[in-house]
Amino acid sequence: MFTLGIDYGTNSVRALVVRCKDGAELGVAVFAYPSGHQGVLLDPKDHQLARQNPADHLLGLEKSIKGALAQAKKTKGFDARLVVGLGVDTTGSSPIPVDAANTPLALDAKWSKNLAAQCWLWKDHTSVKEAAEITALAAKVRPHYIAKCGNTYSSEWFWAKILHCRRSAPAVFRAAYSWVELADWIPSVLAGVKDPRAVKRGVCCAGHKALYADEWGGLPDVEFLAQLDPALADLRGRLYDKAYDANVPAGTLCPEWAKKLGLSVGIPIAIGEMDVHYGAIGSGVCEGTLVKVIGTSTCDCGVVSAAKTVRDIPGICGIVNGSILPGYYGLEAGQSAVGDIFKWFVEGVLGDASLHAVLTAEAAKLKPGQSGLLALDWNNGNRTVLVDPLLTGLTLGTTLYTTKAELYRALIEATAFGARAIIERFREYGVPIDRVVCAGGIAEKNPLLMQIYADVTGCTMLVAGSSQACALGSAVAAAVLAGAHKDFATAQKKMTRLKAGVAYRPKAKNQEVYERLYALYRKLHDSFGGVDKAADLSRVMKDLLDIKAASHA
Amino acid sequence: MFTLGIDYGTNSVRALVVRCKDGAELGVAVFAYPSGHQGVLLDPKDHQLARQNPADHLLGLEKSIKGALAQAKKTKGFDARLVVGLGVDTTGSSPIPVDAANTPLALDAKWSKNLAAQCWLWKDHTSVKEAAEITALAAKVRPHYIAKCGNTYSSEWFWAKILHCRRSAPAVFRAAYSWVELADWIPSVLAGVKDPRAVKRGVCCAGHKALYADEWGGLPDVEFLAQLDPALADLRGRLYDKAYDANVPAGTLCPEWAKKLGLSVGIPIAIGEMDVHYGAIGSGVCEGTLVKVIGTSTCDCGVVSAAKTVRDIPGICGIVNGSILPGYYGLEAGQSAVGDIFKWFVEGVLGDASLHAVLTAEAAKLKPGQSGLLALDWNNGNRTVLVDPLLTGLTLGTTLYTTKAELYRALIEATAFGARAIIERFREYGVPIDRVVCAGGIAEKNPLLMQIYADVTGCTMLVAGSSQACALGSAVAAAVLAGAHKDFATAQKKMTRLKAGVAYRPKAKNQEVYERLYALYRKLHDSFGGVDKAADLSRVMKDLLDIKAASHA
Repeated sequence: MFTLGIDYGTNSVRALVVRCKDGAELGVAVFAYPSGHQGVLLDPKDHQLARQNPADHLLGLEKSIKGALAQAKKTKGFDARLVVGLGVDTTGSSPIPVDAANTPLALDAKWSKNLAAQCWLWKDHTSVKEAAEITALAAKVRPHYIAKCGNTYSSEWFWAKILHCRRSAPAVFRAAYSWVELADWIPSVLAGVKDPRAVKRGVCCAGHKALYADEWGGLPDVEFLAQLDPALADLRGRLYDKAYDANVPAGTLCPEWAKKLGLSVGIPIAIGEMDVHYGAIGSGVCEGTLVKVIGTSTCDCGVVSAAKTVRDIPGICGIVNGSILPGYYGLEAGQSAVGDIFKWFVEGVLGDASLHAVLTAEAAKLKPGQSGLLALDWNNGNRTVLVDPLLTGLTLGTTLYTTKAELYRALIEATAFGARAIIERFREYGVPIDRVVCAGGIAEKNPLLMQIYADVTGCTMLVAGSSQACALGSAVAAAVLAGAHKDFATAQKKMTRLKAGVAYRPKAKNQEVYERLYALYRKLHDSFGGVDKAADLSRVMKDLLDIKAASHA
Repeated sequence: MFTLGIDYGTNSVRALVVRCKDGAELGVAVFAYPSGHQGVLLDPKDHQLARQNPADHLLGLEKSIKGALAQAKKTKGFDARLVVGLGVDTTGSSPIPVDAANTPLALDAKWSKNLAAQCWLWKDHTSVKEAAEITALAAKVRPHYIAKCGNTYSSEWFWAKILHCRRSAPAVFRAAYSWVELADWIPSVLAGVKDPRAVKRGVCCAGHKALYADEWGGLPDVEFLAQLDPALADLRGRLYDKAYDANVPAGTLCPEWAKKLGLSVGIPIAIGEMDVHYGAIGSGVCEGTLVKVIGTSTCDCGVVSAAKTVRDIPGICGIVNGSILPGYYGLEAGQSAVGDIFKWFVEGVLGDASLHAVLTAEAAKLKPGQSGLLALDWNNGNRTVLVDPLLTGLTLGTTLYTTKAELYRALIEATAFGARAIIERFREYGVPIDRVVCAGGIAEKNPLLMQIYADVTGCTMLVAGSSQACALGSAVAAAVLAGAHKDFATAQKKMTRLKAGVAYRPKAKNQEVYERLYALYRKLHDSFGGVDKAADLSRVMKDLLDIKAASHA
């Protein structure tokens, strides 16, 4: 038996054919979205705008699956008729305005050129004002709505985007019968659902991005929405009442798409989740294991049994029952920039992308503390634990002899300190973290960074065995649904793995130095982050010089 | 009538022939010291060591003066017999161990290879421990000794260096009959003085570097020195009892040197001062005028009538009666790095010296506050007003879009904020600053920096008319002594000038923005500098973003 995982990223979609019994990856195909700039529709007049063309999503669905199947066919024993299920993950929150037949407005010639009628990509930041408005209203009248997302509603999320559409493109808003997250829409397409009200919505997007919770009756109440805009209250009835975890199928493959893809009619389709959530499953997330997907930014996912009581954790972006694994609270944290910070420094400031390798090699020769530098990883704000986009980067300890390799290493260390702040916050609130599994290109390719993360956090850093962990996680969900495995734990055990022979273990000598540096990082973090409003920073520079001197001794 | 000014720098010595009636510069010659690395003797095993070969000083004295005279002879009306006096300035504190005949030990074959027997150059930092010891002892038993130098004795200064010699090279210490500052030794050579006890010492070096003051009976007392080391107490009797201001000649030109140089026997030689002090005179310093010599680092000189009472000013490195102009307290402040910071960023980090011009042009296009950046100018510590070498650089406000030109401008602005902190400290303590005259290469060549300094400080920035202000100031002192002018004020009026047509005036619109940025700079300055040990920095990054947003509006 085989399943297909389909992973919608920012610039492309990939499909992966996986063997259920052992997770072997038999075929993969990537389809780059043809529209816009690398698949993203931009507005030269508004750099905060980022949209996607739903036509790209449809074309990519067919092309990527067919490509992956064609490749899988080269393996003996594979047959498309043995594909028993499909799973889909996408970026999020990426809502699409649809008509009453569940067709995106963008696919109608009347709206196809209108940017507001497209899929509102996760990183679209046009809705900053609306997000602040939602945060303020909730803080006043429904504080529990935002207590689980660090007390701040983001401009990247569902309601902020729809409210912004209502205000900036009222005609599109009026024409939209409903709005569907991309993660829910793709499964509904495969299932042939022709009514948005009938689309099975995943609790992953609903809970993390749309303020959905069973405990308060689903989506935010009509009264709350009406205070934002009566039209939102009106829309609520055309959205959904209930959202589901991955134990519930989004539907079964409809004849039209079965034929198009050469797959069997009626095989189950897993509920849609956001990429990193299925990525966590594909990387082996379970209670006690934190999965870090390290890329341009970082997403950290953990789970805690739903049988336990999980307190709200200040600064953790989302705590949602079933958002990753059924039966577990899914916990999501993250750093707003990691790879992006290195890219900024090397390409933006130094202006030479080829320096990444050179600087990594030079930085690897430095000992912890040797540079006397300390940096904050806030070039794109702080997502966890401060939840404050209005923070910026800082570098401290420069002398007349500071080198670019030292600065580069200080930036890596800054992201490691940020990672540790997240782990500490989880632990403070009783979320156990016994091991850390990292996924993503940086985890696979940068041993220096991984060792620094181990030394700074004190955790052994493991690496996910698959470099397409998200698609693999989707395939795992499909396998469970199709009955190939009795539950997620078994399916993960059989279908996912760690990268063999790779474990970055903390080195006691480095840990000692980083313990001192982290204490200084926290001083800056708490002071500039507003946690400590009477900070004594008079020793920070001197302590760094002491640590530097000790490293040379 | 003409005078000669001789200026001993770190890498070379220059002589300048000046016409007394109008300050016209008729001849100049520069002699690069042949020894060591660009004239500096280094020790590969100790990067804090920096010495100079006294033989270079002697050779350079002859070569530079002869060169300048030869050039002057091309001007009609000039004749070497019309040279009526000589003035000398040098780096300091740069003490030389000498024998009983006033000959540097280094000129004796027995010691010529010994680094401890050379001239201990101002920037030699081998004596950090001894400086700390002197500071600690003075704080305990003679607090008034260091009250006038910001309560910190520096490793660059006279006693620290001699004490370090005593400990690290006892044989040299024993062989030295006495120690003479380079600024005092060169005039004594020209005057043919063969006994160190007979060398006329300038109050400039004595007061600023050797804890000399008439009010406590000259040099530090025997009891104090004995607590540091009995050998220092013993040495005190072979140094000097009295130091003099520029109204007193160091001597008259001896027959030997008159013959060697082709000058008249018996013409007066001005007392030696440190380069920047005579530079201040050559730039037109007077009560109400601050002279800033802007180079790799910055020296700020002001004067206040000795008829007034000048309180000790916290953080101002030195307040010495007669150290610049006779009849005035000389006040010295400075920034440990200015040009050096730009050099570090452009050459050290970006690795391309040619970028200075490019970045200056790009930075000039930016509006104040537009980058959202704020930096501290502490890459080489803070000399004034914190007097703390153990401080380091900081840059804050970086995003994923921060450019190198923005960083470059932020560093210029940081040095401007540092300059403003000095001006404010002077004013707080009643030292009037009505105008600022800048000297040095950066002042002459960087209009962007000068305009930023004007906008940040609110002072019109003027530029010294001579690009050899130090040598010119020495020549002014010689002219007064020779009776060419009745006093320094008249001599300065006739012989010095501002760069014609150049005045950088503050622009109100920029001042408003810099007022806000300076308030934030002070927050960081006071917090990291230890002035405010309960700082609220929670708004710093947000305020910068607000200022940035306003600049785009």
